[in-house]
Amino acid sequence: MTGIIVCGHGHFAKGLTSALHLIMGEQDNYIAVDFPSGDTKTELEKNIYRAVAQLSRSENILIMCDLLSGSPFNTAIMLAMKNPNIHVIYGTNLGMLIETVLKRNNQASIEELIDTAISTGKQQIGIFEVPEDTEEDSFDE
Amino acid sequence: MTGIIVCGHGHFAKGLTSALHLIMGEQDNYIAVDFPSGDTKTELEKNIYRAVAQLSRSENILIMCDLLSGSPFNTAIMLAMKNPNIHVIYGTNLGMLIETVLKRNNQASIEELIDTAISTGKQQIGIFEVPEDTEEDSFDE
Repeated sequence: MTGIIVCGHGHFAKGLTSALHLIMGEQDNYIAVDFPSGDTKTELEKNIYRAVAQLSRSENILIMCDLLSGSPFNTAIMLAMKNPNIHVIYGTNLGMLIETVLKRNNQASIEELIDTAISTGKQQIGIFEVPEDTEEDSFDE
Repeated sequence: MTGIIVCGHGHFAKGLTSALHLIMGEQDNYIAVDFPSGDTKTELEKNIYRAVAQLSRSENILIMCDLLSGSPFNTAIMLAMKNPNIHVIYGTNLGMLIETVLKRNNQASIEELIDTAISTGKQQIGIFEVPEDTEEDSFDE
C-alpha cells in the first residue's frame, strides 16, 4: 500500500488531516508533517525524513505538499530526486486528498494515484452558481 | 475591500490560515471558521453567520470552502442564495488562497477575485517531474 505524507507550512498538514479524519476516519500509512512558526528547516527535514522512514514498508510514497515552492516542497523534492519511489504532488486540496486516500486504500497503482490526485484536485475547484429561480418563481427561460 | 472567510471541516480553515500567516502575515477582513469534531451544525451556522456579520462593512464577501459538499459548503451557499454579495468557492488550496488574498489586498473586483481563485487553484496543482539528468551527468539528448 502506497504511503501518503501530507506536508505544508504552518499547520496546513494537520488541519487538512483533521478534516480527512472527520470525513473518513483515521488512516493507516498516512502521516501529516507540519512546519509551524519557530521550527527550523533542519527540524522540518528531520520530520519529513522520519515520516519517510516510518513508511519504509510501502513500495511507493506520495508526498502531497501545500505549494509548488517553499521549504516543505523543496525538502520533499530533494528526497524524490534521490529515490524513484518517492513522488511529490503540490497544490493539495481536501477533495484530492480524500479521493487519493480512497483509491490508495483500494490498492490503486502509484500512477493511478498521481492521475487521480491531479485530475480530482482540478475538477473539485469551482464557484457555486446561485440558481436563477432561487429568489422568486420565474416563468422566464 | 472584499471580506474573505475560509471555512471547512475539522481544523481545515485554521490550518490553512496558519500557513497563510506564515507566508504573508496576519490579514485584515479575513476570518477562518473551523468545524471541529463535536461541534453541531447549529454551532457551525452560528460561527459562519457571526463571521459574515463581522465583515458587514465589506461590499462583497468571498467564502472559500474545503469541498463542494458537507456542512461548511451547505451553510455558505444558504447565505449566498439569500445575499447576492456573498460568493462561495470550493476546493480551496493554499496557492489560490494566497493569490486571492494578494489581489484582494490590491482592491481587485469580486469578479477578478473569483477568476483568480479558480484559475490559480487549478494551475497550482501538479506533480514534480524529476529532471532526467539528476542522477548522473548525461550527454544524451
